[in-house]
Amino acid sequence: MRVLALMLALVSSAVFAAEGMWTLDNLPREQLKKQYQFAPDKAWAGHVMKGSARIAGGCSASFVSKDGLVLTNHHCVNECVQQLSSGDKDFIRDGFLAQKQEDEVRCPEIELNRLEEISDITPVMKKALAGKSGADFATARKAQKAKLESACIGEDKETTRCDVVELYHGGQYALYKYHRFQDVRLVFAPELAAAFFGGDPDNFNFPRYNLDMGLLRAYEDDEPAAIEDFFPFKSAGAQPGELTLVTGHPGSTQRQLTLAQLELLRDFILPTRLFDLAELRGLLTQFSAESEEHARIAQNDLFSIENSLKARKGMFEALLDPEVFNFKRKQEAALRAFVGKDKSRKAAAGKAWDEIAAAQKIQREIYVRYRRLDAGTFATRYFEIARALVRGAAEREKPNAERLEEFTDAALPSLTQNLFSTAPVEPDLEQVKFTWALTKLRESLSQDDEIVQQVLGAESPSQVAERMIKGTKLADVAERKRLWEGGALAIEMSTDPFIQLAVAVDAEARAIRQRYEDEVEAVEQKNAEKIAAARFAMKGTGTYPDATFTLRLSYGEVKGWNENGEDVEPFTTLGGGFERATGSDPFRWPDSWTDKQDQLNADQRFNFVTTNDIIGGNSGSPVINKKAEIVGLVFDGNIRSLGGAYWFDERVNRTVAVHSGAILEALRKIYGADALADEMEGKE
Amino acid sequence: MRVLALMLALVSSAVFAAEGMWTLDNLPREQLKKQYQFAPDKAWAGHVMKGSARIAGGCSASFVSKDGLVLTNHHCVNECVQQLSSGDKDFIRDGFLAQKQEDEVRCPEIELNRLEEISDITPVMKKALAGKSGADFATARKAQKAKLESACIGEDKETTRCDVVELYHGGQYALYKYHRFQDVRLVFAPELAAAFFGGDPDNFNFPRYNLDMGLLRAYEDDEPAAIEDFFPFKSAGAQPGELTLVTGHPGSTQRQLTLAQLELLRDFILPTRLFDLAELRGLLTQFSAESEEHARIAQNDLFSIENSLKARKGMFEALLDPEVFNFKRKQEAALRAFVGKDKSRKAAAGKAWDEIAAAQKIQREIYVRYRRLDAGTFATRYFEIARALVRGAAEREKPNAERLEEFTDAALPSLTQNLFSTAPVEPDLEQVKFTWALTKLRESLSQDDEIVQQVLGAESPSQVAERMIKGTKLADVAERKRLWEGGALAIEMSTDPFIQLAVAVDAEARAIRQRYEDEVEAVEQKNAEKIAAARFAMKGTGTYPDATFTLRLSYGEVKGWNENGEDVEPFTTLGGGFERATGSDPFRWPDSWTDKQDQLNADQRFNFVTTNDIIGGNSGSPVINKKAEIVGLVFDGNIRSLGGAYWFDERVNRTVAVHSGAILEALRKIYGADALADEMEGKE
Repeated sequence: MRVLALMLALVSSAVFAAEGMWTLDNLPREQLKKQYQFAPDKAWAGHVMKGSARIAGGCSASFVSKDGLVLTNHHCVNECVQQLSSGDKDFIRDGFLAQKQEDEVRCPEIELNRLEEISDITPVMKKALAGKSGADFATARKAQKAKLESACIGEDKETTRCDVVELYHGGQYALYKYHRFQDVRLVFAPELAAAFFGGDPDNFNFPRYNLDMGLLRAYEDDEPAAIEDFFPFKSAGAQPGELTLVTGHPGSTQRQLTLAQLELLRDFILPTRLFDLAELRGLLTQFSAESEEHARIAQNDLFSIENSLKARKGMFEALLDPEVFNFKRKQEAALRAFVGKDKSRKAAAGKAWDEIAAAQKIQREIYVRYRRLDAGTFATRYFEIARALVRGAAEREKPNAERLEEFTDAALPSLTQNLFSTAPVEPDLEQVKFTWALTKLRESLSQDDEIVQQVLGAESPSQVAERMIKGTKLADVAERKRLWEGGALAIEMSTDPFIQLAVAVDAEARAIRQRYEDEVEAVEQKNAEKIAAARFAMKGTGTYPDATFTLRLSYGEVKGWNENGEDVEPFTTLGGGFERATGSDPFRWPDSWTDKQDQLNADQRFNFVTTNDIIGGNSGSPVINKKAEIVGLVFDGNIRSLGGAYWFDERVNRTVAVHSGAILEALRKIYGADALADEMEGKE
Repeated sequence: MRVLALMLALVSSAVFAAEGMWTLDNLPREQLKKQYQFAPDKAWAGHVMKGSARIAGGCSASFVSKDGLVLTNHHCVNECVQQLSSGDKDFIRDGFLAQKQEDEVRCPEIELNRLEEISDITPVMKKALAGKSGADFATARKAQKAKLESACIGEDKETTRCDVVELYHGGQYALYKYHRFQDVRLVFAPELAAAFFGGDPDNFNFPRYNLDMGLLRAYEDDEPAAIEDFFPFKSAGAQPGELTLVTGHPGSTQRQLTLAQLELLRDFILPTRLFDLAELRGLLTQFSAESEEHARIAQNDLFSIENSLKARKGMFEALLDPEVFNFKRKQEAALRAFVGKDKSRKAAAGKAWDEIAAAQKIQREIYVRYRRLDAGTFATRYFEIARALVRGAAEREKPNAERLEEFTDAALPSLTQNLFSTAPVEPDLEQVKFTWALTKLRESLSQDDEIVQQVLGAESPSQVAERMIKGTKLADVAERKRLWEGGALAIEMSTDPFIQLAVAVDAEARAIRQRYEDEVEAVEQKNAEKIAAARFAMKGTGTYPDATFTLRLSYGEVKGWNENGEDVEPFTTLGGGFERATGSDPFRWPDSWTDKQDQLNADQRFNFVTTNDIIGGNSGSPVINKKAEIVGLVFDGNIRSLGGAYWFDERVNRTVAVHSGAILEALRKIYGADALADEMEGKE
C-alpha cells in the first residue's frame, strides 16, 4: 500500500484503498473486513472463481445462468459477430439475437476457460531452475512448464487446460487448471451503434452511454452446459459507496518492473508500437472509407487498432508523468537500499537491477527485428496460418518438453481451434495489411538486409502481396487440415507462397526469438525472481502480483472523481444517452433504440464508474456485490486508468461499467429478449 | 567549440572541426585559415551571398548562370512539377525538360529570394523591447518588426523583401534585405524514379544514388534575369579531404534551447507530431493505392509526410540518446553556474531558465488546441485559402504594425502569390485530409468542446467534409480574387462553406494564438535573449546562432564515416546505382537511364558525403570549393545528421550531395540537355 501512502500525502480526503488485483487464493481479507465489513470465506471465493470465465483471446466473462449463458462485452464478441457476418447479413451493424436455442451459432475462434483449481508449484519450479541462467534457464523453464502442464491435463485434453502461471515475475509459480469450453455460441449482440455509442472519441472517457454487452452460451456435447456456479442479476445495481467486486482476468500490468524496464518502455517500445498503430489506423481508415463492404470487413481490425492506440497513448503519457517516475525511482531506491544493507540479500539480489538493465540494451537492439520476423505475423492471417502449419509440422516431431511453447500438448487445442477456424479471410483487407508489413520489414531492417532481399526480390511490397495472396490456398480450411495432417513432408512439398515464405524466414525468425528468450526474457525473469524475494522480505506477502491474464478479484465502490477541478458524477442514465446523440456515427442510436425511446425509463442508470483496480483483459468482467449478484458489467476504464499499468492512482483511476438494470431494460424493452432476461434474473 | 571538445574526449582520431552554420557577416575566418589555409575576404563573402538563393517555401538554391538559371533539388521543385502536371501529362513520373526558353513554365507558387544586405538592428529592437514582457513584449516586437521591414522595403514591394531576423534567439537582431523573384520557371526536372531512387527506404541513408536536382530560371519583366554573381560548375567535383563549403538556408536547429524546452520537445511535441504524421502516412498510402491518379495527386503530400516523419523520428531518437541529454545538462549547468557566480549577471538572467520552464507548462497545455485551431489549416488547401481571405480582409483594415505577421505589407506579396496560385486543388485528396483534420479536432478537443460541436453539428467528419467540398468555390482563382478585393463586406456576405468555417472558428483560433504568442513565445524569446547575453559573456562572440532559415555558410570536407564498426566510403558511382536496382519502385531506374546505361561512365562519382554542418532547409544548397565553383548539390543528410538539430556530432553527422560531374553527365548523356550543361559550365 505504499502507492496509497504517497497518495494520501497529496490529497486530504481519501479514506479508502482499492488498489490491488488479488489472486483468489490470497484475498485481502483484512482490508475488506475493515473497510467494508465483508469477510469472504473459502466457499465464497470458490463460488466466485467458478462463476468467472476467461475468453482465451483476451477478455473476461461470467456465467449468468445454470444453462451456460455467458455475459461479456460486445467488443469481446465483436470478432465472432464479424466472422459470422457477410456482405448480405451484417450482424455488426444490425445486431444478433437468437430467438431460440437452435438459432445460437458457434463462434469459430472463441475458447472459454473456467478456473477450477490453483496449485502452488513454486518449489518444484525453483528447483528445476536453480543455478541456471540465460539459455539454460529458458530451456529448463520451458521444459518444466510443459511437463507440469501435461501431467495436469492427463488424458483429458479436450476439456482440461492447465497453465503454469508466473506470479510476482517468478517470485511464485502456480498451476492453474481450467475447464475448457470450445463450443461457444453467440446468443445476443446489440448493434455496434448501441454497443459502442460515442465510438473512438468517447472510448476511455466518462460520462458514457454504452450497451457494451454480448451473450454467449457454453455448450458441451451439443447441449447447453450445466453450470452450478453462476451469478444472478440484481437489477437495482449498486449504490454509491457500496462495495463492488470485479472478478476477471486483467491482462498485464507493469507495476513491479524496474526503472530500466520502464525506461525502455517509455523511450522505445511504446513509441515504436504507437507509430505502427497510428500508421495502420490511417491505412484502415482510408480502406474503410472506400466502400461499405470494406468498412464492414475492416471493422474489427480498425476497432482493435484504435483501442490499442488510445490505450497505449495513455500508458505512454503516464510514463512521461514525472510524478509516476519519481515515485518509481523512490520505490526502487528504497528496495535497493534494503537489499544493500544486508550481506546475504546483497549477494542474492544485489546485481539483479543491473543485469535487467543490461538485458534492456539487448532488447533495444533486437526488439524490432524480433517483432518484424517472429513476434508478429506479417500482419496477415495467411502468414499466421502458414507459420502455424510450418512450425507445427516441425515442432510436433519433437518431445513435448522441447517444443516452442505454443505447440506443447497443453497448447495444441487452442492452436488448432484457431488454425481450423471457418472465419472468412478477406483478400482485399489482407492485401493492405500484408503490404504494410512488408514495407515495414524493409523500413526497419533496410533494403540491404538479406532477409528483406529474399522476401522482396525484384518486386515491391504490394506486388509481392498481390502475387502471394492470389496464389495461396490457405483460406481453405480443408487445405490447412491437409497440410497439418501431412506434417513435414506436406510442408516440404507445398508450393503455397505463404508456406514457402514461412519456411524461408523460419531459421532467421527462430534465431532472433531464441536470442530474445535467452538474452532478454530469461535474464529479466531470473532477476525478477530475486527482486521479488527481496520485496517479500521487505514488505511481507500482503501484496498482489502484477496482472498475468489470470483470475483476480479487485474491490472498490461506486464513486465519481474530480477531473481538473470538476466533479464527475458516477452514474449516467438512458435519457442522457439520447441527449448526447447527434444523429451521425458514432453518436447515433440505432433505430431499435429510437423507436422504443418513449417506452424506456429515461432515469434508468446506464453506465457507472467504480474505484476498482482493473486493466485491459478485464473487459467483460462482472461487477458483483457481496452476495455475488451482478450489479454491472465492466467494459472500460477512464482515461486516467491507463496509467494503472504502472501504478494505481485512486484519486482518478476509475472502472467503467454497464449497469445491470440497463442491461435488463434493453433486453426486455428494446430487443424483446424477455426469455434471456428471465434466464438472467433466474425467473423460469 | 565546446561540443567538439567533448567529442574529442570520446574519439581518438578526429583532427578537424566542421561544426557551425555561420552568418555571412561573421565567418569563422581563423578556423578556416588554420585548418584549410583559406581566408575568405569580404568580396568572396559578398559574391557567395549573392550567388545563393532561397526558395521561400523552405529550400535553398543557387544561381548557376548569368541568365538566371537556378540549381536546386528535385524535391524542392516537386510541388511545382506536380502542379504543372495533370492526369494526361505526369511530369513527376516522366520528368520535364524545356528544350527552348519559351518552353519554360512558370511555377505558380515559387518565390526566390536573394540576400543583398545584412544590417545589425540589435540596438533599435532592444530599445523597443526594453522592460517589456508577456503580451506587451509580443506586441512591441511585432510592431517594431513591421515598422523596420516596411521602411526597408520602401516603395519597391514587388522585388524587395525585408525580414527582421532574430539570431541567438534574440541575442542579436538583423535586417535581411532580399531581392525577390516571383516569376520563376521550371526548366528541368528528371523523373522521380531517378531523382528519388531508393525512395523512402533509402531516404537519409548512404550509400545513395540520386539525381535529386531541378533547374529553374528566374525571370524579370518576362526575360531571364541578368545575374552577376553565380557559381560555375566544376565537373571534377571535390577530392577527399578537400575543403567543401555549403552556402544555404538551414531551417531550424535547437542547439541553444534550454533543457526544459528540449524535454517538452522530446516528451510531447515530437511524439504528438509523429503520431499525426504516421496516421497521415497510412491514410495517403492507402489513398495512393486506390488508383494511379490518386497516387499522382497525393505524391507531393505523401513525400512530404514521409520525409518529415523520418526526419522527426531521427530527432526524437537523438533526444532520447542519453549522450545528447547528458551533454546538454552539463552545458546548461555550466552556464547557469557562470550566471550564478556574478551578482549583476544573476540579477539579469538568473530566473531565465525557470521562466522558460514555466512557459513550457503552458505550452504543454495549449499546444494541441493551438495546432488544431490556428497553426494548422485543417489539413486542407480550401481552409488555407479561406483563412487567408477571412483574415486578410480583417487585417488589411488595420495599421501595418498591428496586423498578424503574415499580413504585414512586407509579407503580403508572398501571401498573395500563394493565395492566387493557379495550382489545381484536388477534391478527392482534400476530402481525405480534411476528414482527418476534423476527426483529429474532435479527438483532441473532445466531443464536448463547443467549437467541435459548432464545426461538426449533427454530421460526422466525413459528411461535413463532403458537403463543404461540394459546396465551395474556392478552387476558382477568380472567386478568391473577388473575395480578396471585396474585403470585409464580401467575406460577410459569402455563403461559401469554407469562408463560413474560417469565420466561425476565427475568434477561438485567434484567442489561442494570442495566448501562444504572449505566454509561450514572448516568454521564451525574452528569456532566451538574457541567456544569449550570458552565453556571449561566457564564451565571446566566436559562436554561431541557431538556424533560422537565413543564409549560412558551413565548411567541411569530403569524408566517409564509421557506422557501427563499418567504414562507409564517401563516394558512390553511377555504376553502383545500376547495381542497386531491383527493377521495381523505388529501386527502379527510368527507361531514359537504362536505355543509355551503356553510354554512361560507370565510374562517374554520383553521390558523396561531407562533414558540413547542415539541417533541413539546406536542401538545394550548392557545395562549392574555395573558388566558389560548384562541386556538388546538397540533397540530404545521413540518418545520424538528424540529431544535428540538437548538437553536431562530427563523428557521424554527414551531408549527402549529388556530384557536379554526375549532374553534367546525366544532362548531356541521358537527357540530351547539352545547352543547359553548356550554360552551367559557362560554355557558350
